[in-house]
Amino acid sequence: MIKIGIVGGTGYTGVELLRILATHPQAQLTAITSRKEDGLPVAEMYPSLRGRVDLAFCSPDKAKLTECDVVFFATPHGVAMAQAPELLAAGVKVIDLAADFRLQDVAQFEKWYGIPHSCTEILKEAVYGLPELNREAIKSARVIGNPGCYPTTMQLGFAPLLKAGIVDAANLIADCKSGVSGAGRKAEIGFLFSESSDSFKAYGVSGHRHTPETVEQLQHISADKVGLMFTPHLVPMIRGMHSTLYARLTAEISNEALQSLFEDAYKDEPFVDVMPFGSHPETRSTRGSNMLRLALHRPAGSNTVVVLVVQDNLVKGSSGQAVQCMNIMFGLDETTGLMHVPVMP
Amino acid sequence: MIKIGIVGGTGYTGVELLRILATHPQAQLTAITSRKEDGLPVAEMYPSLRGRVDLAFCSPDKAKLTECDVVFFATPHGVAMAQAPELLAAGVKVIDLAADFRLQDVAQFEKWYGIPHSCTEILKEAVYGLPELNREAIKSARVIGNPGCYPTTMQLGFAPLLKAGIVDAANLIADCKSGVSGAGRKAEIGFLFSESSDSFKAYGVSGHRHTPETVEQLQHISADKVGLMFTPHLVPMIRGMHSTLYARLTAEISNEALQSLFEDAYKDEPFVDVMPFGSHPETRSTRGSNMLRLALHRPAGSNTVVVLVVQDNLVKGSSGQAVQCMNIMFGLDETTGLMHVPVMP
Amino acid sequence: MIKIGIVGGTGYTGVELLRILATHPQAQLTAITSRKEDGLPVAEMYPSLRGRVDLAFCSPDKAKLTECDVVFFATPHGVAMAQAPELLAAGVKVIDLAADFRLQDVAQFEKWYGIPHSCTEILKEAVYGLPELNREAIKSARVIGNPGCYPTTMQLGFAPLLKAGIVDAANLIADCKSGVSGAGRKAEIGFLFSESSDSFKAYGVSGHRHTPETVEQLQHISADKVGLMFTPHLVPMIRGMHSTLYARLTAEISNEALQSLFEDAYKDEPFVDVMPFGSHPETRSTRGSNMLRLALHRPAGSNTVVVLVVQDNLVKGSSGQAVQCMNIMFGLDETTGLMHVPVMP
Amino acid sequence: MIKIGIVGGTGYTGVELLRILATHPQAQLTAITSRKEDGLPVAEMYPSLRGRVDLAFCSPDKAKLTECDVVFFATPHGVAMAQAPELLAAGVKVIDLAADFRLQDVAQFEKWYGIPHSCTEILKEAVYGLPELNREAIKSARVIGNPGCYPTTMQLGFAPLLKAGIVDAANLIADCKSGVSGAGRKAEIGFLFSESSDSFKAYGVSGHRHTPETVEQLQHISADKVGLMFTPHLVPMIRGMHSTLYARLTAEISNEALQSLFEDAYKDEPFVDVMPFGSHPETRSTRGSNMLRLALHRPAGSNTVVVLVVQDNLVKGSSGQAVQCMNIMFGLDETTGLMHVPVMP
Repeated sequence: MIKIGIVGGTGYTGVELLRILATHPQAQLTAITSRKEDGLPVAEMYPSLRGRVDLAFCSPDKAKLTECDVVFFATPHGVAMAQAPELLAAGVKVIDLAADFRLQDVAQFEKWYGIPHSCTEILKEAVYGLPELNREAIKSARVIGNPGCYPTTMQLGFAPLLKAGIVDAANLIADCKSGVSGAGRKAEIGFLFSESSDSFKAYGVSGHRHTPETVEQLQHISADKVGLMFTPHLVPMIRGMHSTLYARLTAEISNEALQSLFEDAYKDEPFVDVMPFGSHPETRSTRGSNMLRLALHRPAGSNTVVVLVVQDNLVKGSSGQAVQCMNIMFGLDETTGLMHVPVMP
Repeated sequence: MIKIGIVGGTGYTGVELLRILATHPQAQLTAITSRKEDGLPVAEMYPSLRGRVDLAFCSPDKAKLTECDVVFFATPHGVAMAQAPELLAAGVKVIDLAADFRLQDVAQFEKWYGIPHSCTEILKEAVYGLPELNREAIKSARVIGNPGCYPTTMQLGFAPLLKAGIVDAANLIADCKSGVSGAGRKAEIGFLFSESSDSFKAYGVSGHRHTPETVEQLQHISADKVGLMFTPHLVPMIRGMHSTLYARLTAEISNEALQSLFEDAYKDEPFVDVMPFGSHPETRSTRGSNMLRLALHRPAGSNTVVVLVVQDNLVKGSSGQAVQCMNIMFGLDETTGLMHVPVMP
Repeated sequence: MIKIGIVGGTGYTGVELLRILATHPQAQLTAITSRKEDGLPVAEMYPSLRGRVDLAFCSPDKAKLTECDVVFFATPHGVAMAQAPELLAAGVKVIDLAADFRLQDVAQFEKWYGIPHSCTEILKEAVYGLPELNREAIKSARVIGNPGCYPTTMQLGFAPLLKAGIVDAANLIADCKSGVSGAGRKAEIGFLFSESSDSFKAYGVSGHRHTPETVEQLQHISADKVGLMFTPHLVPMIRGMHSTLYARLTAEISNEALQSLFEDAYKDEPFVDVMPFGSHPETRSTRGSNMLRLALHRPAGSNTVVVLVVQDNLVKGSSGQAVQCMNIMFGLDETTGLMHVPVMP
Repeated sequence: MIKIGIVGGTGYTGVELLRILATHPQAQLTAITSRKEDGLPVAEMYPSLRGRVDLAFCSPDKAKLTECDVVFFATPHGVAMAQAPELLAAGVKVIDLAADFRLQDVAQFEKWYGIPHSCTEILKEAVYGLPELNREAIKSARVIGNPGCYPTTMQLGFAPLLKAGIVDAANLIADCKSGVSGAGRKAEIGFLFSESSDSFKAYGVSGHRHTPETVEQLQHISADKVGLMFTPHLVPMIRGMHSTLYARLTAEISNEALQSLFEDAYKDEPFVDVMPFGSHPETRSTRGSNMLRLALHRPAGSNTVVVLVVQDNLVKGSSGQAVQCMNIMFGLDETTGLMHVPVMP
């Protein structure tokens, strides 16, 4: 059994870790910290966990995190890097669901997150936790920077095209749409039901933190310089993310060959589903599961390929992917505890 | 392994059976019938099942249902009773998710469902599939009438009060609210997103089919004559059911004693959660799971007890309960394949 | 033109007043106060008002409220009673959308609202602003306590029955459901989209502030002692309120006579629509309008009458009703500026 | 008073015409046809209109449409062109909310709509009813092809850029999102609440009817050949449309100059609101109103301009625009009856 600590278990990525780990056959939930909720049984805050999770929140200073095998940080940016050195020194692996270990370019990190990076030495060994593109490195990692939700869809959608070198890498467009849970469990007026229901809007169009992360990773697999226009939108739904990706083809290629490119790229991937050419994946087809589904289109007469990508932003887009990384790091079957069938309708 | 047939797998209770049975360790999905969709892979209609359910729909005449161990009917009323005799003769157990085997009072059945009952002999041996109130009979049943969604909440909410004989049984009120999936997967204008979203209404206030079923069952456990005013409402949510039950106390009883009454009644039940007195259960705390949660209130100074009951109408209110019955009928642990943690948020 | 001041224009009842008054032919918006947003153009906070409302928020100390003809308080409880004396002294009429002037029973006010009442002299002359039951008093009022949203539906639904003396007044039950905007525009986690969407729950079941207000008013029209069990619920919709009212009949009366009772009671009311007996009103049929609709049911064989009442909680349930009162107080046609056709779908 | 006929009043564009015209001071609703609902009072189908619209549906053969001044067709494609000749001959003006008179290119019409065009002579004189780009022609038109909802946003968003000749016209991208009411009031499973709520998807990505219409119109104002990649998506909201438009700049231009370009283009337009540069318009800021709002962005370091456009798809995207055309055709102030303040929240 893997002894597991969770720092910051009161937000949505935290409770989603709990949902997944509560039925993970190798997971032993050992400590869940919350500064504010010290002593409160987790199931009092989240009645959905009544009878399934018996732990109480524990203030960080009392939690014996160094006795865990792995600690997940489901915290705001900046927390993981403050605590990682001590944990690593004690032999504990670290998986950060925030951004502290995602960007190797420290200047970019500091520009977009507005805080200095306090452990750049550890950052250097940190591994970007996207198994489909980075599995080998994850196996031996001590520190994982778990990908952002949007970046997961953009990378898995663009990667086969960039690897094949058949698109204009400098002019990628990603028009992305996220359910409201992506904003976290924070008391902000903009995310009230009465503000975000029955409406739709873009946000962060002039610049968003997930752009540098995505570009840094995509650059690793593209021979050409990557340029990305990323536009996030807020959808009045709880979970779900839909990315509509546009790439201009620079080579002659048939639709069949495009489809094969993606099917080959992901044929052994348990959590990537390449749907038939011309499909329209719905976010709900992934609800509550770790699946990411994608489908290709080429509108008639055009030289642009459109990739439609869907996932549950809290699972493959966050906590599920983190557990997938944990499985890999501990030598388990990668799908252990992650085979939830999507909840539909 | 239990060989399983599903008649009418294209509706919501059908696809929910598939979701549950796809990860049930003792279930072997053997046949799924649909008159219209013969030959269509199930996962094409329901992409959420891609990679998880490999069966195709099969027209009823070709499906080898008599080779199954159990057949679920996720069909409109009237179908199960037409096919049950042949299946039972072949030694196959039958679980009907519709109403054919719920009401022992044939006259009531025919009045409310508008069709004659074609196999009243089999009806006599049919068992009402509410495990918490009827477990022993389910163990040896060959035919199960799976309870309606509303009746499940009303019975489990009123039962301890009626058994104890401490309420005015003749004047029970159940003000119930259901998510839209309860209306099924039928192309009707009233259930379009644009018609039922961002709105709320009652329906069937002057009379609803679930009243006679509930009264018939509650009468078994009440010494006094049961009278029930049942008012269903439609909530703009997909899944979830919330019943607000009112019963006037006829005896002096403390709130603590009331609470104990319920806790004792359900202390060994894996799927009934008696929350602390005064709680307000939310439907989402059961989403995708077989849990039913309830909580008691007694507004200050009143002699009325209010029972709040929530469940997922497609799980404990339908397909999950049917699988719970199957587990009992086949001697399995009752929770087998049913321990989904609710999906929250 | 009526010069109008609004104190606390940043919440939902405030912006709804603005929406209504922006097209009211006799209204001259003169001052809108907000302590926090001094100087901010109203239309920057609410882009829906761009080009329609040119005012900026103004801090309370700078606003020349005493130069207005009427001041609306769209504020938390306690604000209106602090400022009313000065305004009244200056000849300004006051309409409070909060609770300061609703309850004549000061002890009840202080019990339920947890603050002392600071101007009980003014309270004595305050008029409860429910035009359908209190029109004459409103005409000459200087101070209006605008009814709560739930109480409006409960009073208009129960009043004809109580006036006729044909129901058991001591055992009324009101099972009420409200859209989330009723909770106001406050940054609270419980009203986030991800918390309140796709779910349903009751709240305040053990006791809610709207009970004493409703009982106090209903008692005026009932010869018998009024007892009310009121259970509020939260519906995942923005606007709309649905009350399901239960009253036991104590007299023989036909359904036709019941229907006539209501039709007669409201035959001259422009904002109360008595629908045909047995109808199921939907909240959306009132969206954005000042209409309240109701319909009667008597489930077969029962002696209980069920009244279904719907309204838009922000209009007839709050700001629209306040403007209706203003029209009456200033001798205008009662429907002036209030004839919005409901937005459907 | 203008005598008005509506053919096909049972769908969403029909009932929205009724909502708008019910308070239009110059409109006299004269006839509403429905083959199926002959004799049914409109307000029985749409209780939101109780007390506001007294007409009953009338079968097409009985309706005296030739006595009207103008007839709106809120019907499926193909109906208007069948009836227009007789109406025009009788001196009645025709406004078609469907596609019969939108496309001058008959071959394109027949390709995309799958029916032959039966009155190409009338088509030649038909005017495309987008007032902001085509006002003069509308003034004297006898037949209006009212624009599609998506095309309205795409044209008003791209037009200033194309007129100025500063973008790569051949590679425009429009990533558009619509509320579900855009699909109409048809009993189709895909638009059930349980299917389209809490989910998001694209549709028609490989080709959609609104592309040729938009290209044909944009070509009139672009010196360069127009090429458009249009991707529609379905948002779980009732009303509202959000288009995210991408155009690559081919000339040096400052953000200030871009903003001025749009402000100048629309400075006299009552229904187009150019928001400050960098704004994120929300669809709800237009709910129930005829306003279209847009805002410009240029993500840092890029040569791509992003135009965000929102409208209510049933108002400016359909019925409101049709009434705007009617006002122009009959010499009324263009805003008559169209000054609804958006309903927010």
